[in-house]
Amino acid sequence: MKPSLPKGTRDFLPQEVIKRKYIFKTIENVFLKNAYIAIETPAMENLETLAGKYGEEGDQLLFKVMNNGNFLDKSNSKAFEEKNSSAFAFSISKRGLRYDLTVPFARYVVMHQNEIALPFKRYQIQPVWRADRPQKGRYQEFYQCDVDVVGSDSLMYEAELINIYDEVFSNLDLKVKIKVNNRKILAGIAEVSGLEDQFITMTIILDKLDKIGEEKVIEQLMGLGINDKVARNIISLIKLDSLSDFEKAFENSEVGQKGIEELKSFHKYFDLIEHKNKIVFDPSLARGLSYYTGCIFEVSSLETEMGSIGGGGRYADLTGVFGLAGVSGVGISFGAERIFDIMEELHKFPDHLSVSPDILFVAFEEESHLKAFEWSNALRAHGIISDVYPDFGKMKKQMKYADQIKTKYVGIIGSEELQNKKASVKNMITGIQETLSLKDIISLFK
Amino acid sequence: MKPSLPKGTRDFLPQEVIKRKYIFKTIENVFLKNAYIAIETPAMENLETLAGKYGEEGDQLLFKVMNNGNFLDKSNSKAFEEKNSSAFAFSISKRGLRYDLTVPFARYVVMHQNEIALPFKRYQIQPVWRADRPQKGRYQEFYQCDVDVVGSDSLMYEAELINIYDEVFSNLDLKVKIKVNNRKILAGIAEVSGLEDQFITMTIILDKLDKIGEEKVIEQLMGLGINDKVARNIISLIKLDSLSDFEKAFENSEVGQKGIEELKSFHKYFDLIEHKNKIVFDPSLARGLSYYTGCIFEVSSLETEMGSIGGGGRYADLTGVFGLAGVSGVGISFGAERIFDIMEELHKFPDHLSVSPDILFVAFEEESHLKAFEWSNALRAHGIISDVYPDFGKMKKQMKYADQIKTKYVGIIGSEELQNKKASVKNMITGIQETLSLKDIISLFK
Repeated sequence: MKPSLPKGTRDFLPQEVIKRKYIFKTIENVFLKNAYIAIETPAMENLETLAGKYGEEGDQLLFKVMNNGNFLDKSNSKAFEEKNSSAFAFSISKRGLRYDLTVPFARYVVMHQNEIALPFKRYQIQPVWRADRPQKGRYQEFYQCDVDVVGSDSLMYEAELINIYDEVFSNLDLKVKIKVNNRKILAGIAEVSGLEDQFITMTIILDKLDKIGEEKVIEQLMGLGINDKVARNIISLIKLDSLSDFEKAFENSEVGQKGIEELKSFHKYFDLIEHKNKIVFDPSLARGLSYYTGCIFEVSSLETEMGSIGGGGRYADLTGVFGLAGVSGVGISFGAERIFDIMEELHKFPDHLSVSPDILFVAFEEESHLKAFEWSNALRAHGIISDVYPDFGKMKKQMKYADQIKTKYVGIIGSEELQNKKASVKNMITGIQETLSLKDIISLFK
Repeated sequence: MKPSLPKGTRDFLPQEVIKRKYIFKTIENVFLKNAYIAIETPAMENLETLAGKYGEEGDQLLFKVMNNGNFLDKSNSKAFEEKNSSAFAFSISKRGLRYDLTVPFARYVVMHQNEIALPFKRYQIQPVWRADRPQKGRYQEFYQCDVDVVGSDSLMYEAELINIYDEVFSNLDLKVKIKVNNRKILAGIAEVSGLEDQFITMTIILDKLDKIGEEKVIEQLMGLGINDKVARNIISLIKLDSLSDFEKAFENSEVGQKGIEELKSFHKYFDLIEHKNKIVFDPSLARGLSYYTGCIFEVSSLETEMGSIGGGGRYADLTGVFGLAGVSGVGISFGAERIFDIMEELHKFPDHLSVSPDILFVAFEEESHLKAFEWSNALRAHGIISDVYPDFGKMKKQMKYADQIKTKYVGIIGSEELQNKKASVKNMITGIQETLSLKDIISLFK
């Protein structure tokens, strides 16, 4: 049998694992300093928790886990006869794989409301699963990396999350642009344009500006029933780059004024901090997700074309669907898979992320092999990554292995070395070889 | 809708996550020093990779993931009509959730044989899923933590893995007993007892010694067709505690002699190292799994009754089932969930594993709130976990939150403090309050 993997899933080799861990650890360290704490939820959720939360398309993309035992006893025969796979599925499946980290977090907050203090600042870095058609850079299993604070509507947190973006990307040595907007600015634009009832449709059209261009957007906006002048005014509004320009435009829009007020409140905190990246107010930023109600953010790389590598915003009501109303929150997420691809492309992973040992001992005969094992353990006690080739004798085979695993040094204990309690230690990059005692080798790596 | 979790699954609260991470990190650090490197495999494997690898019971416990789309089009109608859930399941499901880390590792080695160098020293810490009936301490989703080396039959690795056990448990501050045996010793006992054809059955009976006692074991052994004397001799053999005692007993058993030889070879390396835990040769150790062929190990706590918290051994052929024969390996695993329970019971988690901030700032009015945010960010730049309560004003509410999140210090910036560029900093344990500058606060945490 020739083994294979399900489509859209991946194995990770050690050199990939270590780089992925570096990204997660870099992100996590910033979360921790900002007093966010980790939670974890199970891979499987009840289907009733997941179903209906991601729209019709999302429901299609949920991985459903079959009930165990004689599940056919309770299956929907009618759906089976009608070949209605979707209805039948729900009769033999109670569980599904986590589709994102947001819905499980909402469930978590409701279920653990008596164990957590509000505001609750949490992060979560775990895989999610989607039955999307696999393609380059899109997988059926991938990690999400979310940080949220719920239970407060203070705009201080918006500023804090922007700081987190700024520091994480700076620590990863990536140059990014962070766009900031507020959905109430867009709501204000909708209101002054007579589109308050078609707000979501308007944002979906505006979201396409980069893709389809200005004229096509104007055309689509006019399709909502406004005239050319109003449509062009919308375009000019979303091109404004200063908050104060909106003051006059929103004279008659309460929600627009509230948006300005929120962004001003955000700026009080935001302006206190020196940022390393380009952070801009961009009223054209819409963000697809309908649950955002306040500030919204989006991050893109300034060094490569890769689309969004992070995004987030404020939602007025995360947990209402699970019976706990009035919990406002704000959160951001990091597109870890894309960040990985960008860092590979730009060679941004630090050199020290190696899966190679510091030193590999090779030996000619048993006595020196045993000595190598003893020394290797002594080095490990000093935190040095040390290894011994398992077979002694054939030097060529041993040196081939040393090359394959890219060891930094090779230690050779021959009979002479054994007598002098020393080893020949070869730097595999420079080729320089020295005769060193155990103590010398320890110093070599300090 | 009242949210719930699937039976047998768990959420982890921040204080649990941080402790679990501590266990994994402690284990991982020892793996890394010993030149083992991490791989990761996807949660979903093809069912054909998993099915048939864990016995009939294991097949029942596999979580199967339903195919997406109109999966009924290709479903087994006959099985449906016959209410044969098991046969039907395979017609609508191609994927299953990982049941352990061993089979995915075998698949990995075969699929990536051209990308890895042998011996390949890998570790893997990931969750697995089993549709077991949930009960206390047994979950449907739990972590496994495996370390293996494949592609060498050197007994040096057995000694290395024992070192790893010894150091990990010592670093976790747990006192354990590590039992060592070799399946060939048991095979020798079977041979000299005329049970060579019933070797596995014999080991299964011997495995029950602790549970059912000597007399019952002798009874069951006699059920295999040997007389009382031979059965009692088996018991006396597995009670021997010195390898040399077996020399005579195995005069006529080639496999027994090979077992002695392997253990001697192991001891050459093992004896070079000073161990911190009790490590004993125990010929009664059998280990249930049939794929072990050489040395076997088992770890139990000396401080609490909790059964095995680790085990492993050598297998002659890990990858044969996937078409790559002759790859010998040896590995051990850590029972992370049980280790967690023991450490909780014995209060072995270090105090520094806190999810509380170092300092929480509270403020009376906006100006000092902004200052608190600024200072908080300055402290974070020094690696200090700092936070600011989002609303200013009501001191009682703010201090209640400080208590809930168990912050170590509270910083108060009032109008006077604002003028003097100082904060009142209260140690929440001692109650002592000092007036400190930003620089003083930084020093406080260094």
